[in-house]
Amino acid sequence: MKPTDLPHRRRNPLTGDFVQLSPHRMQRPWQGQEEANEQTMRSRFSKDCHLCPGNQRSSGLDNPVYTGTYVFENDFPALLEKAAPGVADHPLLQQESARGCCRVICFSPRHDLTLAEMAETDIVGVIDTWAEQHTELSASYRWVQLFENKGAMMGCSSPHPHGQVWATSALPNEAVKEQHSQQGYWSEHGRAMLLDYAELEVQREERVVVANDEWLVVVPFWAAWPFETLLLPRFAVARIDALTATQRQSLAAILKRLLVRYDNLFATSFPYSMGWHNAPGPDTGDARHWQLHAHFYPPLLRSATVRKFMVGYELLAEAQRDLTPEQAAEKLRQQAERHYRAT
Amino acid sequence: MKPTDLPHRRRNPLTGDFVQLSPHRMQRPWQGQEEANEQTMRSRFSKDCHLCPGNQRSSGLDNPVYTGTYVFENDFPALLEKAAPGVADHPLLQQESARGCCRVICFSPRHDLTLAEMAETDIVGVIDTWAEQHTELSASYRWVQLFENKGAMMGCSSPHPHGQVWATSALPNEAVKEQHSQQGYWSEHGRAMLLDYAELEVQREERVVVANDEWLVVVPFWAAWPFETLLLPRFAVARIDALTATQRQSLAAILKRLLVRYDNLFATSFPYSMGWHNAPGPDTGDARHWQLHAHFYPPLLRSATVRKFMVGYELLAEAQRDLTPEQAAEKLRQQAERHYRAT
Ligand SMILES: O=P(O)(O)O[C@H]1O[C@H](CO)[C@@H](O)[C@H](O)[C@H]1O
Ligand SMILES: O=P(O)(O)O[C@H]1O[C@H](CO)[C@@H](O)[C@H](O)[C@H]1O
Repeated sequence: MKPTDLPHRRRNPLTGDFVQLSPHRMQRPWQGQEEANEQTMRSRFSKDCHLCPGNQRSSGLDNPVYTGTYVFENDFPALLEKAAPGVADHPLLQQESARGCCRVICFSPRHDLTLAEMAETDIVGVIDTWAEQHTELSASYRWVQLFENKGAMMGCSSPHPHGQVWATSALPNEAVKEQHSQQGYWSEHGRAMLLDYAELEVQREERVVVANDEWLVVVPFWAAWPFETLLLPRFAVARIDALTATQRQSLAAILKRLLVRYDNLFATSFPYSMGWHNAPGPDTGDARHWQLHAHFYPPLLRSATVRKFMVGYELLAEAQRDLTPEQAAEKLRQQAERHYRAT
Repeated sequence: MKPTDLPHRRRNPLTGDFVQLSPHRMQRPWQGQEEANEQTMRSRFSKDCHLCPGNQRSSGLDNPVYTGTYVFENDFPALLEKAAPGVADHPLLQQESARGCCRVICFSPRHDLTLAEMAETDIVGVIDTWAEQHTELSASYRWVQLFENKGAMMGCSSPHPHGQVWATSALPNEAVKEQHSQQGYWSEHGRAMLLDYAELEVQREERVVVANDEWLVVVPFWAAWPFETLLLPRFAVARIDALTATQRQSLAAILKRLLVRYDNLFATSFPYSMGWHNAPGPDTGDARHWQLHAHFYPPLLRSATVRKFMVGYELLAEAQRDLTPEQAAEKLRQQAERHYRAT
């Protein structure tokens, strides 16, 4: 066995957490639960879909006959403008107030598409909508979480292409950790951590999935999920609404190249949760330490039906993976740039 | 709406993380993925089971004809005695060495039982085995993670009642956080955090699921999973192998009362990941701040087939729940103590 094939732990500098690697274990047979392969041919419009243009939602409201993206208030928001007050009647029973708002972002009027199969110009439309939502919501909330749950395996209840935005007055756990780490790196090195990291990974090559002049996708050195990726700008930028038109175009291009590879990997509409980490507000200008980035967390491990379970050891001790990030990056790199379903 | 029905965040004093509560959202309909109901009648012995007494495992080795618990080395261990060396050639690429060992613990020779359906005396046998494993492995490793993944939904690949133990020379993420928090509380208050917490919850009553003179099960104030519970001793003890014979008997009794309630809640063999957090080694005696405890993380939300998905917002920002811990505790309290399948 090569020393790199032996178990070891790697440190995630964004969160401070470690991940346990077991590269020698790739041969393990799987006799447990298999997922349904969600592969179905869908039509452009579905009369039963709550998100298709013109249809009625579960709240009884009608969608307009939209032609690009379409944003509406979540009919069952987890966060409300009105929140319970903070209470700390005991050091072990601490409750904080958190105002917020939740919206749904339809990516396309077409019921049968996904971001991977949309035209690049239409993906630019999604990026513009993300940016607009960020501008609007960051005026009132400290944290604006743009995200997409894709696939039934990721708790997504509608196949219509859509994401969500949840904005909150509180800084959530992950934001606190990333803020702390990036500020620490800035104080120590006088440079943005994720800009240094992007440069380093371009040099090292082995974890790069796709790159263009402005953007880079890597399987990060510390990835926990088998095919987890990190999308990084190769220039200094803290928030998605600061991107120029050219930067949005090259972002659409790299997103498509990544997502087509994901779908091609197991010839399936690849499930994942993805989301953007923008610098937290208020936008006082002092966010040089923070680089805008997106995380992709896909659950699949070996095929369209065999997933990684983050369970006992992971929940109680720490995340564990078999495939190395370098092996995962290579598999993704090898995929064709033409979608397996393209005709 | 009562103020307690409004969204708020609660702080987990063991990890420092927060959880977002949305109690107003309990009415949300569910149109997404449903799980298979794993309810099947099993026989006492299965000739195809790798864990049944006398059968051959996937490694080709034969199990003895065991009559109580049975422990063997995992055929595909995630941790090995030989580990890769630590490497830190760049501040952003930090790799640590971690030696370890992984074992499987069969709880019973009977293929058709679960801990919930085993006799209390046989559960004492499992506790004794957990304690023995802890004694043996904590002599060589800093962290001994005893756990059980139960049910296909939790990545468990065999229905035969069994758990695992993974021991490692490194302190995993969760252990580091709990060590830090409990040490901090001890320095500040001169008392063990989880002993104070147990007393507090006995007084408050509303989050208690079951209690006896020596043990207590609560849905903790900061629970992330819908029916998450925390099992606490009501006396000072840092490690499972320090339990007396009487304490083991009352532990077996309370475990059974909890697990029968779990099964009765949705009339299904309730899936979960559970595990013990013992004070980390080496055992130098200085662990007064650390209380032995077990976490139960069950995925189900509303029925045997509808689970909570910890996905986009949860992975990118922070855990979110609808049902309050107080409501969950009440539902569990109301369950009968007789197993729904008992004849
Ligand atoms: O029981 P197994 O087959 O070793 O594996 C199961 O538990 C492990 C420890 O929580 C996880 O890492 C695996 O993803 C899961 O499938
Ligand atoms: O898309 P929905 O129905 O709001 O809900 C989904 O995403 C949410 C945010 O990640 C999760 O809290 C839910 O558990 C999941 O089912």
